[in-house]
Amino acid sequence: MRALVTGGAGFIGSHLCDRLIGQGAEVWCADNLYLGQRRNIAHLESSNRFHFVALDVLERKKLDALFADAKFDAVFHMAANSDIAAGVADPDLDLRLNQLTTLSVLEAMRVHGARRLFFASTSAVFGETAAVLHEDFGPLQPISFYGASKLAAEAYISTYANLFGMSAVVLRFPNVVGERATHGVIYDFLRKLEKNPAVLDVLGDGNQTKPYLYVADLVDAILLAWEKSSGPLSVYHAAGIGETSVREIAEIVVGAAGRPDTTIRYGAGDRGWPGDVPRFRYDISRLQGLGWQPRRHSTDAVRLAVERIRANGF
Amino acid sequence: MRALVTGGAGFIGSHLCDRLIGQGAEVWCADNLYLGQRRNIAHLESSNRFHFVALDVLERKKLDALFADAKFDAVFHMAANSDIAAGVADPDLDLRLNQLTTLSVLEAMRVHGARRLFFASTSAVFGETAAVLHEDFGPLQPISFYGASKLAAEAYISTYANLFGMSAVVLRFPNVVGERATHGVIYDFLRKLEKNPAVLDVLGDGNQTKPYLYVADLVDAILLAWEKSSGPLSVYHAAGIGETSVREIAEIVVGAAGRPDTTIRYGAGDRGWPGDVPRFRYDISRLQGLGWQPRRHSTDAVRLAVERIRANGF
Repeated sequence: MRALVTGGAGFIGSHLCDRLIGQGAEVWCADNLYLGQRRNIAHLESSNRFHFVALDVLERKKLDALFADAKFDAVFHMAANSDIAAGVADPDLDLRLNQLTTLSVLEAMRVHGARRLFFASTSAVFGETAAVLHEDFGPLQPISFYGASKLAAEAYISTYANLFGMSAVVLRFPNVVGERATHGVIYDFLRKLEKNPAVLDVLGDGNQTKPYLYVADLVDAILLAWEKSSGPLSVYHAAGIGETSVREIAEIVVGAAGRPDTTIRYGAGDRGWPGDVPRFRYDISRLQGLGWQPRRHSTDAVRLAVERIRANGF
Repeated sequence: MRALVTGGAGFIGSHLCDRLIGQGAEVWCADNLYLGQRRNIAHLESSNRFHFVALDVLERKKLDALFADAKFDAVFHMAANSDIAAGVADPDLDLRLNQLTTLSVLEAMRVHGARRLFFASTSAVFGETAAVLHEDFGPLQPISFYGASKLAAEAYISTYANLFGMSAVVLRFPNVVGERATHGVIYDFLRKLEKNPAVLDVLGDGNQTKPYLYVADLVDAILLAWEKSSGPLSVYHAAGIGETSVREIAEIVVGAAGRPDTTIRYGAGDRGWPGDVPRFRYDISRLQGLGWQPRRHSTDAVRLAVERIRANGF
């Protein structure tokens, strides 16, 4: 496999690079280092099958040159603004980093005849609903620019795949946790505690409850979906077992930091920021049908992530 | 009502302007005259409640100035590239004219505190499916850039409405026919016959079958949905009674032209162009629940449109 991983120096992208290299693939890791970090892939740079390319995929000419040179047969488009709250303040951020990067990648694939695409999507495409979310659920009414831009990207992927004979796999990630995270509730709490160990301020009332998935389990899902899918467009949902409240996460983080004297101070309201969806649940039977099983309960995933992020540094 | 109608000199936009003026509204018709035509609104220009503004809504500064000046309490965003086939040749066309115009309008509404939006969407957001399409149907997997860009616009409308306290009405149009059309199968057939009355070449095998709605009935639906809706986002489907095949339309057009000697020559394949959806059916019970009823059978709508387009000139 000759694989391009956009955002390959980021959180999930770098874990994916690890596994692809481990499987014997030749990997081009393209990253503009906006959220990604060189240290996430430093251990791969000695491999002659690993190539780091400092590249913003919005730069179409540079991306074209890379496609012409490398002749990819697999493209994993992981590059994105993954900070949902940041997107609310600047609608253009998610448009550019999530949707327009995808259009850039799709157009390069079309021009250079690369046929197989993996796309990192999100539960945020659904907006706020009490339903258990199957892949075919409708309506899709996002409430964040993050969700809107990812849904827009999915719409263009569907169109390119159907018009130009591509084959795309879309996996809608749940909340993913683990070492090398660049954002998210665990990361935020650890940062806050580092600055002020006496008080941990929590956004919202702490009752936001979501399924968390450990990053290694997600990469299992990505690679299995990739291997088992064919046809223009295959869409999957992945989640861990059960769910975890922000309150539980705060207590785990404070416990792990060995600071039982820390006061956890909750905010008001049922969400962390405008556009936050306080609760969602996934139907994962489609991915289970391929043989994937989440290996950890959501709360165990959170515990493991806290431990690894603390050990790894952040 | 102080209403902005973008694309107001276009096919459906100009009919909407007619009705809004008829209802006593003050109307600003903004159009870049890319598909719209001044002759479509010439009869309105004597009204002191009608204002034509030559404007591309992608020009944010000019749009800002218009919003600041006019203080709209209603925005009907009708401006779009409505030529689906043209979009296949140039992915950027639909992105700019359908999605980015919508983002421009949404941002102007946010900045200037305009709260109520109507958006002209399309059945093409669904892609190709045999299902009877309720508004909540999923998955949404468009196969044309037209459908993708309209779905992307819907996703952003959902987000703006939820984040910024707006109230949006989205009506997903079926195939709409009537005088002042700028494109579409009837228009194409009449143009072709004008050039060569001996032969009418039909794209595809003629079995593509869709529900057609007469433009006046659509405007009824727009205004009823507008009047009866509240909350962040209301989505509706409208269609005429029954459906009509391209083969029937070809025969009606040839018959109306009084050229029984015309040879109708069918192409191959089940669709007119890449991205064409050969058949779709709508569930319209939500709009019927508000009191709307289609007044004509699809094929009667086609007949009336052929007659009016021929009488009106094209």
